[in-house]
Amino acid sequence: MSDFVIDHGRKDRLSFPEIIFGATKSVEVLTKILKDYQAKGENALVTKLQGDKAKQLQEVYSDAFYDVDSGVFILHPLSGSGRSKEVAILSAGSSDIHVVNEIFYTLSFMGVGAEKINDVGVAGVHRLLDRLDELKTYKIIIVVAGFEGALPSVVGGLLPQPIIAVPSDVGYGVAEGGKVALHAMLSSCANGIAVMNINNGFGAAMASFRILQLING
Amino acid sequence: MSDFVIDHGRKDRLSFPEIIFGATKSVEVLTKILKDYQAKGENALVTKLQGDKAKQLQEVYSDAFYDVDSGVFILHPLSGSGRSKEVAILSAGSSDIHVVNEIFYTLSFMGVGAEKINDVGVAGVHRLLDRLDELKTYKIIIVVAGFEGALPSVVGGLLPQPIIAVPSDVGYGVAEGGKVALHAMLSSCANGIAVMNINNGFGAAMASFRILQLING
Amino acid sequence: MSDFVIDHGRKDRLSFPEIIFGATKSVEVLTKILKDYQAKGENALVTKLQGDKAKQLQEVYSDAFYDVDSGVFILHPLSGSGRSKEVAILSAGSSDIHVVNEIFYTLSFMGVGAEKINDVGVAGVHRLLDRLDELKTYKIIIVVAGFEGALPSVVGGLLPQPIIAVPSDVGYGVAEGGKVALHAMLSSCANGIAVMNINNGFGAAMASFRILQLING
Amino acid sequence: MSDFVIDHGRKDRLSFPEIIFGATKSVEVLTKILKDYQAKGENALVTKLQGDKAKQLQEVYSDAFYDVDSGVFILHPLSGSGRSKEVAILSAGSSDIHVVNEIFYTLSFMGVGAEKINDVGVAGVHRLLDRLDELKTYKIIIVVAGFEGALPSVVGGLLPQPIIAVPSDVGYGVAEGGKVALHAMLSSCANGIAVMNINNGFGAAMASFRILQLING
Amino acid sequence: MSDFVIDHGRKDRLSFPEIIFGATKSVEVLTKILKDYQAKGENALVTKLQGDKAKQLQEVYSDAFYDVDSGVFILHPLSGSGRSKEVAILSAGSSDIHVVNEIFYTLSFMGVGAEKINDVGVAGVHRLLDRLDELKTYKIIIVVAGFEGALPSVVGGLLPQPIIAVPSDVGYGVAEGGKVALHAMLSSCANGIAVMNINNGFGAAMASFRILQLING
Amino acid sequence: MSDFVIDHGRKDRLSFPEIIFGATKSVEVLTKILKDYQAKGENALVTKLQGDKAKQLQEVYSDAFYDVDSGVFILHPLSGSGRSKEVAILSAGSSDIHVVNEIFYTLSFMGVGAEKINDVGVAGVHRLLDRLDELKTYKIIIVVAGFEGALPSVVGGLLPQPIIAVPSDVGYGVAEGGKVALHAMLSSCANGIAVMNINNGFGAAMASFRILQLING
Amino acid sequence: MSDFVIDHGRKDRLSFPEIIFGATKSVEVLTKILKDYQAKGENALVTKLQGDKAKQLQEVYSDAFYDVDSGVFILHPLSGSGRSKEVAILSAGSSDIHVVNEIFYTLSFMGVGAEKINDVGVAGVHRLLDRLDELKTYKIIIVVAGFEGALPSVVGGLLPQPIIAVPSDVGYGVAEGGKVALHAMLSSCANGIAVMNINNGFGAAMASFRILQLING
Amino acid sequence: MSDFVIDHGRKDRLSFPEIIFGATKSVEVLTKILKDYQAKGENALVTKLQGDKAKQLQEVYSDAFYDVDSGVFILHPLSGSGRSKEVAILSAGSSDIHVVNEIFYTLSFMGVGAEKINDVGVAGVHRLLDRLDELKTYKIIIVVAGFEGALPSVVGGLLPQPIIAVPSDVGYGVAEGGKVALHAMLSSCANGIAVMNINNGFGAAMASFRILQLING
Repeated sequence: MSDFVIDHGRKDRLSFPEIIFGATKSVEVLTKILKDYQAKGENALVTKLQGDKAKQLQEVYSDAFYDVDSGVFILHPLSGSGRSKEVAILSAGSSDIHVVNEIFYTLSFMGVGAEKINDVGVAGVHRLLDRLDELKTYKIIIVVAGFEGALPSVVGGLLPQPIIAVPSDVGYGVAEGGKVALHAMLSSCANGIAVMNINNGFGAAMASFRILQLING
Repeated sequence: MSDFVIDHGRKDRLSFPEIIFGATKSVEVLTKILKDYQAKGENALVTKLQGDKAKQLQEVYSDAFYDVDSGVFILHPLSGSGRSKEVAILSAGSSDIHVVNEIFYTLSFMGVGAEKINDVGVAGVHRLLDRLDELKTYKIIIVVAGFEGALPSVVGGLLPQPIIAVPSDVGYGVAEGGKVALHAMLSSCANGIAVMNINNGFGAAMASFRILQLING
Repeated sequence: MSDFVIDHGRKDRLSFPEIIFGATKSVEVLTKILKDYQAKGENALVTKLQGDKAKQLQEVYSDAFYDVDSGVFILHPLSGSGRSKEVAILSAGSSDIHVVNEIFYTLSFMGVGAEKINDVGVAGVHRLLDRLDELKTYKIIIVVAGFEGALPSVVGGLLPQPIIAVPSDVGYGVAEGGKVALHAMLSSCANGIAVMNINNGFGAAMASFRILQLING
Repeated sequence: MSDFVIDHGRKDRLSFPEIIFGATKSVEVLTKILKDYQAKGENALVTKLQGDKAKQLQEVYSDAFYDVDSGVFILHPLSGSGRSKEVAILSAGSSDIHVVNEIFYTLSFMGVGAEKINDVGVAGVHRLLDRLDELKTYKIIIVVAGFEGALPSVVGGLLPQPIIAVPSDVGYGVAEGGKVALHAMLSSCANGIAVMNINNGFGAAMASFRILQLING
Repeated sequence: MSDFVIDHGRKDRLSFPEIIFGATKSVEVLTKILKDYQAKGENALVTKLQGDKAKQLQEVYSDAFYDVDSGVFILHPLSGSGRSKEVAILSAGSSDIHVVNEIFYTLSFMGVGAEKINDVGVAGVHRLLDRLDELKTYKIIIVVAGFEGALPSVVGGLLPQPIIAVPSDVGYGVAEGGKVALHAMLSSCANGIAVMNINNGFGAAMASFRILQLING
Repeated sequence: MSDFVIDHGRKDRLSFPEIIFGATKSVEVLTKILKDYQAKGENALVTKLQGDKAKQLQEVYSDAFYDVDSGVFILHPLSGSGRSKEVAILSAGSSDIHVVNEIFYTLSFMGVGAEKINDVGVAGVHRLLDRLDELKTYKIIIVVAGFEGALPSVVGGLLPQPIIAVPSDVGYGVAEGGKVALHAMLSSCANGIAVMNINNGFGAAMASFRILQLING
Repeated sequence: MSDFVIDHGRKDRLSFPEIIFGATKSVEVLTKILKDYQAKGENALVTKLQGDKAKQLQEVYSDAFYDVDSGVFILHPLSGSGRSKEVAILSAGSSDIHVVNEIFYTLSFMGVGAEKINDVGVAGVHRLLDRLDELKTYKIIIVVAGFEGALPSVVGGLLPQPIIAVPSDVGYGVAEGGKVALHAMLSSCANGIAVMNINNGFGAAMASFRILQLING
Repeated sequence: MSDFVIDHGRKDRLSFPEIIFGATKSVEVLTKILKDYQAKGENALVTKLQGDKAKQLQEVYSDAFYDVDSGVFILHPLSGSGRSKEVAILSAGSSDIHVVNEIFYTLSFMGVGAEKINDVGVAGVHRLLDRLDELKTYKIIIVVAGFEGALPSVVGGLLPQPIIAVPSDVGYGVAEGGKVALHAMLSSCANGIAVMNINNGFGAAMASFRILQLING
C-alpha cells in the first residue's frame, strides 16, 4: 500500500496549494488525502470527481461542496458573496456547463469572483456585440467553446484583455472529444489567445489566478 | 502506352464537361488530352497545373489562359465582362488567393460571374458586418478560410443563402495543411454549411453551378 | 444557474429558427428552452435526443413527435401529406436509417417534402441505374453512406442536380466512426459534391432548405 | 562495410526470387547486389528506383530495362510478346500510371501477361459497364485508384474473380498520400476485396503470381 | 418505413449471394430480410450479430446456427463433415477466436472446408517451422493476428501459396483496436500478402472463395 | 474447438516462461491453460485479468494471488520477504497504481525484489531531488507516468542506471489513453531512456529481468 | 487583383495594431501593405518572412530590421536599450532560437523588454534551480521547448508568475513537427500553464502584452 | 546572441558526457560548442549532422571523424581495434544503415565494441536461425528494422539477453516515416523488448551503455 507525499510546500512556492485530480483515484485514497489536508488545517479542491464517489465522501465530510455538472468538490466551501467579479466566463451555450462550472468553482476556491455569460455563440454574433461595453469591465476573459471553437477568435478581435480559451469536448463527428475546438483555438488568427487542454477549466482558473496575483499583489 | 477514354458524354448527362486534374499529369499526356478536346471543338479546363508545365502548354496553345496563383489553365478563355455577379467569394486575407482564384476562374469557365471580397476575417468582424447589405444581393456565398476556419460560422449566422465553405491549406503548427480549417467548417454551429475538400476551389465552383443551373434552368 | 438567451432574431435574418442540439442538454434545460419557444408561439426542433430524455419531455409535451431511430423531437408535428417531394434521400442500406430519418424529419419540420430511397449501394450498381429517370425529377439529391462512402461519387457522375453527401458512422475497423466515408466524400472524383459532418443529417436538410429558398423565393 | 546475404534459397521455397527495394539503397550497394545475382546467373528486379540511380546502373548493365514512370528496373528484360493475358489492371485515370506500370512490369518479370485498362473511373460508370464482357475473360482483376478509391467497390459488385485493390498516392487535401483510398478499399461493401499498401503495385503482382501458380501448377 | 431491395441478382453475377451485416440492424429489420431469403428458398448468412439479437432470431428460426465468439448466424446450417480442407487459418493465440471463427463459418456457409491452426505466434517461431510440411498441403493460407501483426511476414517468407492477412483488434496501448496489426501487414517485407480490414474475417473467406472458384471452376 | 499449444520450451530458451494475457481470454480457456501449467508443475502468471474472471478462477485455484488494481493473477504466489530490492519503481502519483503494481507483482513472480516510490512528480521536483542518494542504490530504475510523461526526462538527467519508462493511460483531453506520455518518453532529451507500450508494466518487469539475468548470471 | 482592407481600427479596439503574416504573401502584396502602413505613419511587424523576400523588401525599406533566425521583419526598428526587462524567455537549447527570437523581437516591437535564458533544459535540472532567484524577478515567464516539451512542467511547479508555453518544431521521429511538445504542454501536471500553437512565438509575445497592459495600465 | 551553458557536470552525475544534437544547429553555434569542449580537454559527439555542415567543421577540426550514412561526427576518433564485441546490431537489410551506423559509432565513442549483422530479415527467417549460437555470445542485442518492424518479435522469442529495438524510417505508404515499425515494436508479443524513438540509434547505444556500466562496474 502506498503512502502519500503531498506537496504541502507548494503553497509557499506558488501561493496556491496542490490540487487533487479526482477522476482516477479511489474513495479510499481520496479519504486519506483529505484527512491529511484537514489535519494541516488546509482547505482542499478535488476536480473531475464522479458523482458516486462524491456521495461517499460527503458522508464523511458533510459540509463539503459538490457540483454535479463539473465534478468539483471543495472540502470547506467559502462564501463568494460580495466579491468583485474580475473574470468573465463566456460560452456558446448551455452544453459547455461542465467546463464553465469547473472554472467558476475553482476561481471561487481561490477567492476570485467571476461572472458566467452563456449563449454568446458565433452563429448569432450580435449577442456578443451587444454586450461589449460590459465585457470591457472584466480583467480577464475566459472563453469556453466546443464544436468548431470559433468564439475566441471573434472575442480576441474585439477585446484587449488577457484571453484564455478552453475547448470543451462537446461535438460529434469530427468534433467528437474536443480536438477540433482545441486546434481551432491554437490556430486562431486573433492575436495572443492562450489555450488550455480540452475540458481543463481548472487550468484556465489557475492561469487567471497567476495573472491576478501579479496585478493584485 | 495508355490510350485515353475521355468521358465526352458527361456534358449530356450533367450539363458540364469532364475537367482535367493537371497536377499529376505529364505535359505529354496533357497535350494529347487537349488535342482530343480541340478536335471535338470543346473548351477545356485544367486545374492545379504547375507553372513550368503551363509554360510548355502555352507554347502549343498560345491563346490559352493561365493563372499563376491558382494553377488554372483554360484552353479558350471567355470574356466575363458584362456578366451579372451571382456568386460572392469571401476570404479572410490575401494568403488564400490560390483557392479564391480557382473558384473565380472555374466559375468564369462555366459562364458564371463572381465577386471576390477579401479581408473580411473574423478577427475584425466589423468589416464583415459593414458589408451585409451588399452580401445579401448574391445568390450563393462561397467562404474560403485557412487557420482556424471560423469565417463560415459567422457568415452562416448572418446570411440566408446557400453557403459553401472551402478550407485552404494556409496555416502553421497544428493548422498546417488545412485540416483544422476543414474540421472546423464541418463542425460549424451555423446551420447548413456545405463543405469541400482542402483547396478544392474547383469543387466549390461546380457545386455552385449545380445550384445555379437549378434556378436558372 | 444560467439563463438562456435564445436567438429568436435568427428567423428574421435567415428565414429559419434556432435549432436545439439535444444530446448534451439535460431534461431540465430542455424543458426551460421549450417553454420559451412555446411562450413565443414558435415550433421547435430538437436533434440527437436520447430516448429516455424524449420520454420525459413527452410527459410534459404530450403531442410532441419523437423518432427513435434518429432522435429527432418536434414540439408541434406538422402533417406532411400532400407536399410535393423536392428532395431525394439516397442510402446504401437500412443501417443508415438514423441519418436518413434526421434529414427526413428536419425537412418535414421546415415544410419540405422528401422521398427516402434505400438499398442503392455501389456493390449492386444496377439498382441505382434502374432508377435514374425517377431520380432526375428531384430538385436536390442527398446521399447518405457509411463504410467506404462511395455512393456520392457514382451518383455525382450520373445526375446534374445539387448533391449533398452525408457520411454515417456505420462501419468497423478503419471505417469505425465514419471518418473513411467522410474523407472519401471530400475526395470524390465526381464534381461539385458538397459534404457535411459525420451523421449531420440535420445540416444536409438545412443546406437543402437554403437552396430551395433561393428557388422557391 | 556490410557484406550482403542475399536470400537465394527463396526461389526454392516460394517459386519466386528475392526482389530488391531500390528507393533507399545507394548505387554502390545496388551494383554489388546485382553483381551477385549476375554471378549466380539469375535475373533481378529492382523496384521504386530513382531515375538518376537507374541511369548510373544502366551504364554498367547496358541491356537492362528501366521504366521511368514506375521506377521498375529489370536486369535482363524478357520478351512478353505472345503471352496470354491473364491479369487485367484497371485504373481510374492516367495519374495512376506509376502504380499501373509497377504491376505490369513486375508481372512481366514473373512471366505473366497483363492488360492495362485505363479511364474506367466511377464518375463515369458506363465506361466500366461497357467492358464487362471483356473483363470477365481475365483470371485476376487488379484495381488501382487514388482519391476516394471507390472503383474496387463497383468492380467487386460486378465481377466474380479474385480482385486485388491497390491505392495510389494521387490526391490532395485529405486524400494526399493515398490513405483515403487505402481506407476506402479496406472498408469496401463489396465482398472479398484484397488490399495492398499504398503504391504497392509490386505486391499486387506478387499476390497475383501466388494465385496463378496455384491454378497453373 | 423503408422497404428492402435485396440484391438477389448478385448470385448470378458473382456466384455468391448478398450477405447481411448484422451489427447495426434491428431484430425487426433482420426478421424481414430473413423472411425474404426464406421465401426465395435461399440460405442466408448474417455477420457480427450480437448475442441478444441472435437469441431473438433463433426463437423464430429454431434450426438456425449461431456462433457466440464470432457472431456468425446461418439460417440453414450445412454439414461440413467430409469436406476436404482447402484453407488453413493460422493464428497466434486463442484471443483471436472471434476472427478465426468468422472465417471458418463463412467458408463453411460457402461450402469450403478449413482447418484452424492456433498458437503459432512469432514469439515461438519453431511451432510454425515444425508444421511447414503440413501447411504446404493447403491451397490458401489465411493468417490472423493482433498486437504487432508479425505472423504474415514470417509465413509469407516460408510458403508459396496465396496468403490473406486479417488483423484482429486484440491489443492494448498503441495496438488497441487493431491498427498496428493492419499497418504492419500492409507494410510486410514478405511479398504478395493480401490484407483485409480489421476483424474482417468474412472478407478473407470471400477472397478465398473467389480464388477457389477460379481453380475449382 | 481449439487445442492449445503452450510454448513450454520458452523457459529453456529465454530463462523465463510463457506468460498468459488474460484480458481477452474466457474463463474456460484460462482454466484449461492453467491446468496445463499445473500438470507440468509450473507456476503461471496471468496479466490484465478482469476482476469477475479472477473471482471465478480463484474458486478453482483457491491459493492463487490476485491484485485488483493491476489485474495480475499468480497461480502459486511466492513469499518476497527477505529479497534484496534491485529495482525502484518511480511514479508521479497514486493514479498510476495499476501500472506500478503490474511491474511490482511481475518482478515478484520472477523472484526480483522491488521498491515502490510514489509521488515524485515533476511539478514538485524537490521531492525527487531529496531522494537521489537512495535512488542511486538500485540497479534499475523504472519510471511510470501519465499526462505529459515528463518524469523520465528529469530522472534520466540525474541517474546513471538503466532507465525504463512506462507511460500510463491516465490523463484527459489530448492526454487521454496515454499517447502523449508515450510520445514524450520516446522524445526525451535525456539519453538512453528505453520505453515500453502504454500500461505495459509487465514488459518493463521483463526487460528488467533480462538485464538482471545478465548481471546476476 | 485584390485590394486590401487593413484593419487600422484594431489599434483603437485592442491597443495593438494588425500584424502581417509574411510566410504566404508575395513580395508584391507585402510591398503594397507596407506602403499603406507607411502612408498612415504607422510602424509594421511582419512575421515568418523568408530570407529572400526580406532581402527584396529591404531594398525598398533600407532601414527596416530583419532577423534571419526567426524571420521577423520590422519596418521602423526601435531602440530597446534602457527598457526594464519584464519578460523572461526560457529555452532548453540553442535549437529553439527561431521561436525565442520571434518572441523577443515581437516584444521589442510592442515596447517590452525581455531577457533570453538559454540552456535550462530538464535533462540538467540544476541549471534551472541555480537561477530561481533571478527568475522570480520577472513579471511573466515564457517557456519554449521542442522534443518532449517537459520544461514548462518543471518551471510551473517552481514559479508563481503567469507562464506561457510555446512548443517548437524541433525534434525527430514521433517528435517531428512539434506535436509531442504541444500535447505535453497542454497535458502538464503543473497548474495554469497557458499554451500557444507550435512555433507561435508571436502569439506568446502578444499574450504577454495583453497581461502587461492590464498591469501597467 | 546567446551564450551556451554546457552541462559539463553531466559526466560526473551519469558517467557519460552531454552529446550535441547537430541537425538544427548552425555551423557557427557548433564551432563555438566544440571549442568549449576542446578547451576543457573533452572529446565530443555530434549526431545527425548534415554533410555540408560536417565538411565545414572538418576544415577547422581536421582530424575529426564523420560518417556520411549516419551523420555521426566525433571530435577525436578513438581506435576501436582490439575491443571485445559486447553488442550485436541486427538489421533486416542495407536500407537501415543510417541507424545501424549511428549505434555503431556512438558505442565506439563510448568505448564499446559492437558487431553489425545485416540481412537477417523475417521474410527469410532461417538466416537468423542459422546464427543463433553466435548471437547468444553477445551481452546486448540491438535490433533495427523499418517497414513492419517484425524482427524484434522473432529475436525476442529466441534470445534471453536485453533487447533494444530501434525503428527506422524506411518504408512507404502507411510505413512512411517509421511509425508502423515503432508501433509494432511497442506492441510486440515477445516479452521485455525495450523501444527507442524512430531513428534514435544514439539512444539505443546510450541505453546499452547504461546496462554495460552496471555489469562492468
